[in-house]
Amino acid sequence: MRKIKLILEYDGSGYHGWQIQDEGLTIQGILEDRIQRLTGEPIRILGAGRTDAGVHALGQVATFRTESPHSISIIRKALDATLPQDIRIVDAAEADESFNPRDDALRKSYFYVLTNGRKAPVFLHSYAWNIPQRLDLPAMSEASGSLLGTHDFTSFMGSGSGIKNAVREVLALNIDRLDRIDFMTASIRGDFIRIGIEARGFLRHMVRNIVGTLVEVGRKRLTPEAVKHILDSKDRRLAGQTAPACGLFLERIDYGRTAVQGQ
Amino acid sequence: MRKIKLILEYDGSGYHGWQIQDEGLTIQGILEDRIQRLTGEPIRILGAGRTDAGVHALGQVATFRTESPHSISIIRKALDATLPQDIRIVDAAEADESFNPRDDALRKSYFYVLTNGRKAPVFLHSYAWNIPQRLDLPAMSEASGSLLGTHDFTSFMGSGSGIKNAVREVLALNIDRLDRIDFMTASIRGDFIRIGIEARGFLRHMVRNIVGTLVEVGRKRLTPEAVKHILDSKDRRLAGQTAPACGLFLERIDYGRTAVQGQ
Repeated sequence: MRKIKLILEYDGSGYHGWQIQDEGLTIQGILEDRIQRLTGEPIRILGAGRTDAGVHALGQVATFRTESPHSISIIRKALDATLPQDIRIVDAAEADESFNPRDDALRKSYFYVLTNGRKAPVFLHSYAWNIPQRLDLPAMSEASGSLLGTHDFTSFMGSGSGIKNAVREVLALNIDRLDRIDFMTASIRGDFIRIGIEARGFLRHMVRNIVGTLVEVGRKRLTPEAVKHILDSKDRRLAGQTAPACGLFLERIDYGRTAVQGQ
Repeated sequence: MRKIKLILEYDGSGYHGWQIQDEGLTIQGILEDRIQRLTGEPIRILGAGRTDAGVHALGQVATFRTESPHSISIIRKALDATLPQDIRIVDAAEADESFNPRDDALRKSYFYVLTNGRKAPVFLHSYAWNIPQRLDLPAMSEASGSLLGTHDFTSFMGSGSGIKNAVREVLALNIDRLDRIDFMTASIRGDFIRIGIEARGFLRHMVRNIVGTLVEVGRKRLTPEAVKHILDSKDRRLAGQTAPACGLFLERIDYGRTAVQGQ
């Protein structure tokens, strides 16, 4: 039995998220269907991160087991040809039988893009959250400091996840203001904010709830100190809204020496 | 009577091009409708370049005349609020009565993006032409040399344009291979080709016919010398196919000292 590791890029706009469901198109569902058609076996694919409906990925990592005699190159070509335009195989490789893309991940990197202006640039509006009001970046950065490190993130966990231990370690949380953003070979001027966040693992909706709360700080509806209080309270009702899925990208997953990168 | 100059960004995917038509949604049509609603006057808008159906713009320039007492800032805000998400006002200003965005243009810059691989990156596939076969860039660059300067471009003119004088001056024609392309704050690895072309004015489909012909050279179906022969023949049937509209961007229009830029 072989284990195949895929690095995947997808535009989540048209999907009900990564994880297969009884109803609705999912990334996992499409992938399993296409791999099954290729190998003729029942296929179960394991993804490193269960991205929500509408969330995008540049470097999702997933594995499946197969008895197929096809070469990696053939598998990759066949999948790219049969998968829709909004899912692409960035890389494919043989993996050790022991490799588990979820449990072995040392660091998952997400980024979220805010466009800060009257209207989002037309080529970015499906991939960012537009906030008309100018945001207070120093206040957001100050607030983010209390989220760095190991904490119980119950206040930032989406309901219904069934997780008992909400302790996670945020390894990095960077907020940068950009006066231009790149699209194809052009550079679009404006006021943009990139929030990058890294952890070994995240709770359901955790990144989007952190972004939604930081935006409340940027709007001066919450103080930076209030964010520490929200974290300590372990009460989801105190945090800000869940930021829209469209602005969130799973950028990369690192596995130490055998780092697997999406870009 | 005031004359207002707009700089516009649009995603052409959903439109039947710039120029108003009896049927089908056009950029000009939408703009005239929204400006008329704002000012209550009949409005005629003049664009610098009549982009084809599906072609995008980062820096289209257009003017309209109005007796409206609204400030530029109000006009800009009202239009951004009522225009759809795929058309945005990048800038608005009062213009001299004598300013003509088409006739006064000194240089129009377009670029075209080719993704050269098995499958286009998912975030770029609506904005590029994917060619699976690796293209011969030195041959394309050599071929482009014969198109630089002043020539009769009849061989590269779309039919039905009714233009009698097909002489145009290509001021710049650059072909660059890129091993990464930017999307949002990420960089996507791959094999990309950017074709940048500048002229004071272009014929109908001229950029797309040049790109289609250069791709034939890249595929080794035409020699670089054949392109000079095609140009000299003034016979449209000899040139390559018209490249798909989705990969073409009107990037910028320059007006000399009062240069108007889209980025």
